[in-house]
Amino acid sequence: MLSKNKIKYIQSLKDKKGRAEHGVFVAEGNKMVGELLHSIPCQLLVATSGFLENNSVPQVGELIEATEDELCKASFLKTPQQVLGIFVIPSWDSQKVDWAGSLSLMLDGIQDPGNLGTIIRLADWYGIRHIICSPDTADVYNPKVVQATMGALARVQVHYMDLPEWLAAHSGIPVYGTFLDGENMYGQTLSASGVIVMGNEGNGIRPEVAEYISRRLFIPIFPPGSQSSESLNVAVATAIVCAEFRRREIYR
Amino acid sequence: MLSKNKIKYIQSLKDKKGRAEHGVFVAEGNKMVGELLHSIPCQLLVATSGFLENNSVPQVGELIEATEDELCKASFLKTPQQVLGIFVIPSWDSQKVDWAGSLSLMLDGIQDPGNLGTIIRLADWYGIRHIICSPDTADVYNPKVVQATMGALARVQVHYMDLPEWLAAHSGIPVYGTFLDGENMYGQTLSASGVIVMGNEGNGIRPEVAEYISRRLFIPIFPPGSQSSESLNVAVATAIVCAEFRRREIYR
Repeated sequence: MLSKNKIKYIQSLKDKKGRAEHGVFVAEGNKMVGELLHSIPCQLLVATSGFLENNSVPQVGELIEATEDELCKASFLKTPQQVLGIFVIPSWDSQKVDWAGSLSLMLDGIQDPGNLGTIIRLADWYGIRHIICSPDTADVYNPKVVQATMGALARVQVHYMDLPEWLAAHSGIPVYGTFLDGENMYGQTLSASGVIVMGNEGNGIRPEVAEYISRRLFIPIFPPGSQSSESLNVAVATAIVCAEFRRREIYR
Repeated sequence: MLSKNKIKYIQSLKDKKGRAEHGVFVAEGNKMVGELLHSIPCQLLVATSGFLENNSVPQVGELIEATEDELCKASFLKTPQQVLGIFVIPSWDSQKVDWAGSLSLMLDGIQDPGNLGTIIRLADWYGIRHIICSPDTADVYNPKVVQATMGALARVQVHYMDLPEWLAAHSGIPVYGTFLDGENMYGQTLSASGVIVMGNEGNGIRPEVAEYISRRLFIPIFPPGSQSSESLNVAVATAIVCAEFRRREIYR
C-alpha cells in the first residue's frame, strides 16, 4: 500500500528543488522504468500486482505494491501507468569523457522539456553519448523531459556546464553550429568527432557561445532560396544535422 | 473592450466541437497572427493598443482593442500575447492537388498536437504543400497544433481523408513509409514526387495502410546494427526522411 507520506514525497519530486534535496527523480511506465531499472540505481519502485506478475524486478531500495488508484494519486501523467520508479540522479564525470574522439551535442538554453527529451532520444539513436547543456537549459530530470526520452536517459549522459568556459578549455575540438546565414551543410566537410551546438528556441545561440563556432552550418530550405518558414523546431533541426553527420560517417 | 460574451466565445473555440460549430479557429502572438492575417480571412482580431500602433492590420471582420488583462482572460497560452485572431477554417479542395507531381506527407493517427504542429512547420521548410491525415489524427485547428506550426499553417494545406480509400484511388503514385525492418533509406532510390507515410506515436502505421506502401524505408541507427533506442520521435523521423528526399533533389 502506498502511504499518503510516500505520495507527498513523490509529488515533491515534480520540482527541481525537491529533486535536488533528495538527489532522485521520477520515471513512469513499463518501458521507461524497465530501461532505467537495468542501468540506474532505484530507490523506490511502486507497481501494481499486474506489473509485478509480468516483470522480473532487479534489486531495488524499496518495493511497494500499490493499486491503480494509489498510483494514479502519485502520478504526474494524465494516463497513469502500472509502475513508477524513483531513481538516483547519476553524477557523471565530464573529465573522463573522450571529447576529442567522439561526436557530442551542446545545448545553449533549450527551454522546452519536450524538445530536450526528444533531443536526448535522438542522440541515443545516433550513438551520441554526451550532451553538454548550459545551466539555463531545462532540467533533464524534469518529469516531462524524462518521459520524452523514452528510456534514452539510461544511455546518454547530460552534463550542465558553463559553455564559453568549456569551449575555451577545449579549443582543439571542431565546433559546429546551425545558423540561418551559415553555409549549406551538404557542401561542408563534417568531421567524425566534435561538438554540434544548438540554440534556444526563440533566440538561437548566444553571441558568447557563437564566437567559438568556427563551422557555421545551414540546413537548406526547399526549394533553395524560397522564403517560406523562418525556422525549424530545434529538435527537428538537431535531428537533421545529426543524421547528416552519421550518414557521412557510414558513406565516407 | 473585450466583453464577457466574446471571451466566452473565444474559450468555446478551444474544443473541436466549438470550432466545428462556428467554422473558425484561434491563433495567438505577433508572428502567428501576422503570418495568418495575410493569407486566411480573419473574423475577429483582438489586440492591445501597443500592437495596433506597431503593426498595419489588413481588412478584418471585427477589430477589438483590448487591455493585456482582457487578452489574458481570453488566451489559451500561459504567456499571454499582444494579439489574438479568430480565423475562418479554410476548405481545401483535395481534388485540385497535383499529387503525382509533388511530394506530400500522409499521417496515420498522429496523436500529439505538438508533433502535428512540428510536422506542418517542417513540411513548410521543405516545400511540402499538402498533408493527408487520417480522421483520427489530432485536429490541425487545435490551439496547441496552431501554435506549434509557427505560422506554417498559412502555407501548408492539411486534408483529412480515409487513407486506404485515398491510396486505392491513387495507385500510380510512389508511396513510402518508415519501418524498423525497412531498407536503409540511403541505399534506396527516392523519387522527386510521391507520398511519405508516417505512423502513430505508439503503434506506427496501421496494416490496412501499410499494405499500400511499396517502398519501406529504415532510418539507419548509429553505429549500424546497435541496439540502443527503439525508435525516434515521429516529428524527428519525418524531418530526417524529408531532409533526405530534398537533399537528393538538390544533388541529383
